[in-house]
Amino acid sequence: MYAPDRYAAAAMSLTVVGSIAFDAVKTPFGERERMLGGAAVHFALAASFFADVRAVGPVGDDFGEEEYAVLHAKGVNTDDVEHVPGGKTFFWAGEYGWDLNDRVTLDTQLGVFADFEPKLSEASRASDFLFLANIQPDLQREVHAQCSNARFVAMDSMNFWIESARESLIETIRGVDALMLNDAELRQLTEKPNLVQAARELRAWGPRVIVAKQGEYGSALFTEDGFFALPAYPLETVIDPTGAGDSFAGGLVGYLAAHPDEELSNDLLRRAMAYGTAIASYNVEEFGTERVQRLTGDEVVGRVADLRRATAFADAPVPLR
Amino acid sequence: MYAPDRYAAAAMSLTVVGSIAFDAVKTPFGERERMLGGAAVHFALAASFFADVRAVGPVGDDFGEEEYAVLHAKGVNTDDVEHVPGGKTFFWAGEYGWDLNDRVTLDTQLGVFADFEPKLSEASRASDFLFLANIQPDLQREVHAQCSNARFVAMDSMNFWIESARESLIETIRGVDALMLNDAELRQLTEKPNLVQAARELRAWGPRVIVAKQGEYGSALFTEDGFFALPAYPLETVIDPTGAGDSFAGGLVGYLAAHPDEELSNDLLRRAMAYGTAIASYNVEEFGTERVQRLTGDEVVGRVADLRRATAFADAPVPLR
Repeated sequence: MYAPDRYAAAAMSLTVVGSIAFDAVKTPFGERERMLGGAAVHFALAASFFADVRAVGPVGDDFGEEEYAVLHAKGVNTDDVEHVPGGKTFFWAGEYGWDLNDRVTLDTQLGVFADFEPKLSEASRASDFLFLANIQPDLQREVHAQCSNARFVAMDSMNFWIESARESLIETIRGVDALMLNDAELRQLTEKPNLVQAARELRAWGPRVIVAKQGEYGSALFTEDGFFALPAYPLETVIDPTGAGDSFAGGLVGYLAAHPDEELSNDLLRRAMAYGTAIASYNVEEFGTERVQRLTGDEVVGRVADLRRATAFADAPVPLR
Repeated sequence: MYAPDRYAAAAMSLTVVGSIAFDAVKTPFGERERMLGGAAVHFALAASFFADVRAVGPVGDDFGEEEYAVLHAKGVNTDDVEHVPGGKTFFWAGEYGWDLNDRVTLDTQLGVFADFEPKLSEASRASDFLFLANIQPDLQREVHAQCSNARFVAMDSMNFWIESARESLIETIRGVDALMLNDAELRQLTEKPNLVQAARELRAWGPRVIVAKQGEYGSALFTEDGFFALPAYPLETVIDPTGAGDSFAGGLVGYLAAHPDEELSNDLLRRAMAYGTAIASYNVEEFGTERVQRLTGDEVVGRVADLRRATAFADAPVPLR
């Protein structure tokens, strides 16, 4: 049985390497000209509910105490956040229309991210769990090589790398335990229009675990043991979808890190997906990190219970005609 | 408890009114130049596993014994299939690309369907359950008026009627118990981009039950009692998606008709969606009605059990950080 303080007592260390950013976002519900964002930030905040998280990524002179405070308030270790003197933090500006599934990028300024060479401290290298957020796949492999003792490594990527660095991306994928991509990217990467076939192909490349992110439709899990699908949490109001995928990944991998004594079973992965789904649902209810900053563990647990109720069905099969 | 022969003993009569057609379909996996199709046919075959089904729709001189035999083999009553002398049966030709979600209509010949005026026999009018497949909404209301004693009425429609007969469609929707549409159509009809909001609006119009069909992502249920989502059955090979939505509806409404003594609860509707999902998954594995024609009840029950396994997750919540 679980002890009430189990997550605090047994949690493993979890390192995430990826972008730390300022985002400008405009949606039909409002806009923000400059707010904390980036894959490593959204992932770290979500994972902080479960594990000791270390965030690794570069920032410029414009990244200050206010931003660090958001991460520190959730216990995220920022020792390996690299401040590049004279540099500017990665900046992304985008706009969503009424259909929040589609977004337009208005501006991308790489800033210090352009020359990012991940340098991990001994503490980060020693992490038990590692998440390679969406960065250039050569860099993902370099980071992975530095964390040679990690017991579980998951990664994200995007269509840009599938198109511009396909061979390197495949090499990176071969080495990880879990690949988490949008379903369209899984299809693009394997050139297989059928998602089940795409996931089978990708598992043959190396990863034991394939997670398809499906936006408003939720997510699907493909492992040797079978298939699992979970809907997104039903929301009447979505304010800003930015960071949903990274929050989902942070909740998922964080949950795994909180259960180091359990085998990486389908049962464990399913629960982890539910926690990731719950945290992602809060993430999109307000701009940027605003909602997750004041999110409580009880609220997360509540939505996981809701998701169980929203997906369960009984059956007493009788012979059909 | 269920008796083994319950479905046979207690099943209600179920009438479906809609198109009976010949389809020409081309997909990357092959093609058929002329095969039995149409919403009423796909619905009736799926529902035949659960209920006494009566199919209502017009056919021409080209509709012969071979086609009737497919329906009769599954026990579908065709007394109200109206043969229009000198007419031609509705013909639809379409092509699917590698992404089977999108299809192009190559040809539509309404034939006898153009002047269809549903004439229901006494037996069909007395049906307990009624499904108004996708036809002109004025006609749907005429049929509904003829079946004034039906205890449960469900309906489908399509974007064409939303655009060309919106007011009539809304009037039809106001009178039914359940509306089953693609999620994009639910959004279009209500002009609400958020599906939860769209479903809430539609329930305010009248129907107690809103079912969103989501193609490869499955389906979602919205009622006063809450939200339920079910993935599609994971298939490595989809040969022909034509008729999937009508097979799903046929399994769903058929299952309800097989449980007339149960209250129309969320629990019952969820099970019904699972049976609809299972039958639809078989429908798309071969062209047209080919697979469902030789489908057995045991196979349906097997996939419902698979779906339960593919959607269940346990949880033993502990306080998060």
